[in-house]
Amino acid sequence: MTIAVYPGRFDPVTNGHLDIIRRAAKLFERVVVAVYDAPERPTLFTAGERVALIRESIQDLSNVSITSFHGLVVDFARRQNATAIVRGIRKNADFEYEFEMALMNRKLAPDIDVVCLMTDLQYQYVRASLLREVARLGGDVTSLAPPNVITALRAKQGQRKS
Amino acid sequence: MTIAVYPGRFDPVTNGHLDIIRRAAKLFERVVVAVYDAPERPTLFTAGERVALIRESIQDLSNVSITSFHGLVVDFARRQNATAIVRGIRKNADFEYEFEMALMNRKLAPDIDVVCLMTDLQYQYVRASLLREVARLGGDVTSLAPPNVITALRAKQGQRKS
Amino acid sequence: MTIAVYPGRFDPVTNGHLDIIRRAAKLFERVVVAVYDAPERPTLFTAGERVALIRESIQDLSNVSITSFHGLVVDFARRQNATAIVRGIRKNADFEYEFEMALMNRKLAPDIDVVCLMTDLQYQYVRASLLREVARLGGDVTSLAPPNVITALRAKQGQRKS
Amino acid sequence: MTIAVYPGRFDPVTNGHLDIIRRAAKLFERVVVAVYDAPERPTLFTAGERVALIRESIQDLSNVSITSFHGLVVDFARRQNATAIVRGIRKNADFEYEFEMALMNRKLAPDIDVVCLMTDLQYQYVRASLLREVARLGGDVTSLAPPNVITALRAKQGQRKS
Amino acid sequence: MTIAVYPGRFDPVTNGHLDIIRRAAKLFERVVVAVYDAPERPTLFTAGERVALIRESIQDLSNVSITSFHGLVVDFARRQNATAIVRGIRKNADFEYEFEMALMNRKLAPDIDVVCLMTDLQYQYVRASLLREVARLGGDVTSLAPPNVITALRAKQGQRKS
Amino acid sequence: MTIAVYPGRFDPVTNGHLDIIRRAAKLFERVVVAVYDAPERPTLFTAGERVALIRESIQDLSNVSITSFHGLVVDFARRQNATAIVRGIRKNADFEYEFEMALMNRKLAPDIDVVCLMTDLQYQYVRASLLREVARLGGDVTSLAPPNVITALRAKQGQRKS
Repeated sequence: MTIAVYPGRFDPVTNGHLDIIRRAAKLFERVVVAVYDAPERPTLFTAGERVALIRESIQDLSNVSITSFHGLVVDFARRQNATAIVRGIRKNADFEYEFEMALMNRKLAPDIDVVCLMTDLQYQYVRASLLREVARLGGDVTSLAPPNVITALRAKQGQRKS
Repeated sequence: MTIAVYPGRFDPVTNGHLDIIRRAAKLFERVVVAVYDAPERPTLFTAGERVALIRESIQDLSNVSITSFHGLVVDFARRQNATAIVRGIRKNADFEYEFEMALMNRKLAPDIDVVCLMTDLQYQYVRASLLREVARLGGDVTSLAPPNVITALRAKQGQRKS
Repeated sequence: MTIAVYPGRFDPVTNGHLDIIRRAAKLFERVVVAVYDAPERPTLFTAGERVALIRESIQDLSNVSITSFHGLVVDFARRQNATAIVRGIRKNADFEYEFEMALMNRKLAPDIDVVCLMTDLQYQYVRASLLREVARLGGDVTSLAPPNVITALRAKQGQRKS
Repeated sequence: MTIAVYPGRFDPVTNGHLDIIRRAAKLFERVVVAVYDAPERPTLFTAGERVALIRESIQDLSNVSITSFHGLVVDFARRQNATAIVRGIRKNADFEYEFEMALMNRKLAPDIDVVCLMTDLQYQYVRASLLREVARLGGDVTSLAPPNVITALRAKQGQRKS
Repeated sequence: MTIAVYPGRFDPVTNGHLDIIRRAAKLFERVVVAVYDAPERPTLFTAGERVALIRESIQDLSNVSITSFHGLVVDFARRQNATAIVRGIRKNADFEYEFEMALMNRKLAPDIDVVCLMTDLQYQYVRASLLREVARLGGDVTSLAPPNVITALRAKQGQRKS
Repeated sequence: MTIAVYPGRFDPVTNGHLDIIRRAAKLFERVVVAVYDAPERPTLFTAGERVALIRESIQDLSNVSITSFHGLVVDFARRQNATAIVRGIRKNADFEYEFEMALMNRKLAPDIDVVCLMTDLQYQYVRASLLREVARLGGDVTSLAPPNVITALRAKQGQRKS
């Protein structure tokens, strides 16, 4: 059985991330979405909130689980008995970074392979930091993330202003 | 069961290709190496020769088969009941081309996903056309392809000169 | 009045090209689509056919004209009193080439500026050579070019085989 | 009449920015230079200072106006009845970022198009942050920005040290 | 006699840096490793510590000296009578940045040339910030830097936690 | 003494090539310009003509010699006792190709290092194939190559037409 880990910050999850999760769920027997909980770098949503927002969005996928982690991705992947780390790629700049990380991860854990899936064309310009910024400036982001995320984002950003 | 197709010209197969085949064989239940037989574009080795050179190199992999094909990759993949097309990536320029082809393939066959694996660091500079050229100019290519391929390459290139 | 020239081989015109023509027609007073007629490099369609296929596709755009040319783009642009050369950009590799050509053109004609427009997301993977190849291999290309082009492509490629 | 907005932080305006403004002023009927006033991200010059430095540098261009704005670029562009957003491009990395922003802006405002102009060769290495850093370290930057900007930069950086 | 300066932050020196120093030492008569001491940007190791860690690692190279500097690289290079600035390149993103800096440096000091050497394949994924992060998360970094650096890194990071 | 080889096709030599030769001549004790004579790939000028055009252009450089070669660059470099292969880099696409070749050359000859120099800004868009094409179409190329090359190019291209 091939188990794949899909790690990220997911601050918050976007339709681009969900697209990759659905693709991975079709290719692998089990997919573990791994929410990076790194307290030293501030996030808009807590790790718990980020896990919950993903969970609400993929209730129909029976072979996907979500959990937060800290430390090295490869150590987490080993504890999950995973043999693949999934990464979504949108464009060149992404690829360069992924390539470097893949080489480092392969050095640290030769038994786990990095698998790159390509995000759907319609989500090429969607990344979490841009989603947060456009939402903060009052732009319409309803097509970039699922409804529960949009609602949470508005609540969080409204809360911040007051 | 996830079946993956790994298409290419393999003229001839290199250690870089074999690295990707071995990685794919660990991730997927069955891997079909698909040798592109396009008579309109000349190759050094015939399709039959290219299939045989790969077959000799991966006899230890029980879940890998090799076959030649022509026409669209996605049509071949569908006939094999594959849900993944595997591509090996070495560097940026590769990625750009792969990205474009992945989008076109997705348009033609939304049910089949493209999966990119990253070639091992030591094979980053190995591609079949460079292998052929260095061999033709008398360079030492023994670390770039398996022994049977090196032998066949020398025979073929010697044959050509005479 | 700003006149813009949009040069290319258009062998044949794709939905990506038409997307750029429509964008240019909104930005500039007059747009001249310039079909490059370079007899030394073979094309599937004659220059006359390429002009006709574009003309049929943009009959609703009153400020766009189509003509074939040979020689340097900047010389043609000057004869049209154009101050802009329009280029459509799809991805990085395109951009590098365009950048180099823009610098050369600027050297040859400092009074004419190169303007890059970005092709719509849905046409990112559409280029004429890939369109021709997928059509030749029997793939469904109806969403990549207008109906008159698809018909002409089938006629031309059927004709070639027989 | 085609109105174009040229947005940026301009902290401070460089000869590269001025090159793009002059190119845009020749292509479009009216150009609005839009100085991004985002109090949450610190700048060396205030928005008012950045507007004034540009204004002093382009007094000879009768169809260019300068104003500061906050919020989304596309919302500002709409209020100006603009149909084009102008961006200057220097190199690949710029292009990738611009491409992503162009796609996001197109999603937010399909009626406004992004137009990329290429900075003159001699300003390829000029960006405001590098200008600030080289000036701070005592390098000669007189060819990278107009005299009023150089004077203001020295005053501001001298002021900071004391 | 060609004197080359190899500038960087070296926070701390990695096997990739040392690979470049050794390559430069074979090409040039004298190599000055220049440790950038910029107090305004925090580093893990002090400038003195960074100089010492490099010195310990290259005691066998008689034509290499190490010193810290602040200000512009080209001003430092001139004071050393250097005619070359050496830069190690790992991948594309590196190259873009180096290209821009090379153009700026050439403007500031036309008499000093930038020379790019390519890091060995096995160190392509090694950069100091990634080394620090992997070490902090408990990963095995013994193959990425010399023993004295690994020891110093553990001491520094252990010290920080307590 | 560091001897450097600068290999290329030089069909014909451009001002960009000459810029790199002059930079290399300042950095290394001896520079050997190596004109690639590969009869299997057609060139506009013969190897002898290409050597002569370079020789005429650099008579003032006493430490530069020019010769034609065939076979592998690293084999030629070894016969010259060279420890460096010089490459000029203009932009990203160049860099990717150079990187791959550098890795292959390092595999074939670990004792010879590849050194990349950056072409002057004003020659960024100059490459021999573009020079030939613009000249053929009647464009003014006098600033892209030295006078003797321009004269030879006109003679050769006029000769071809008749």
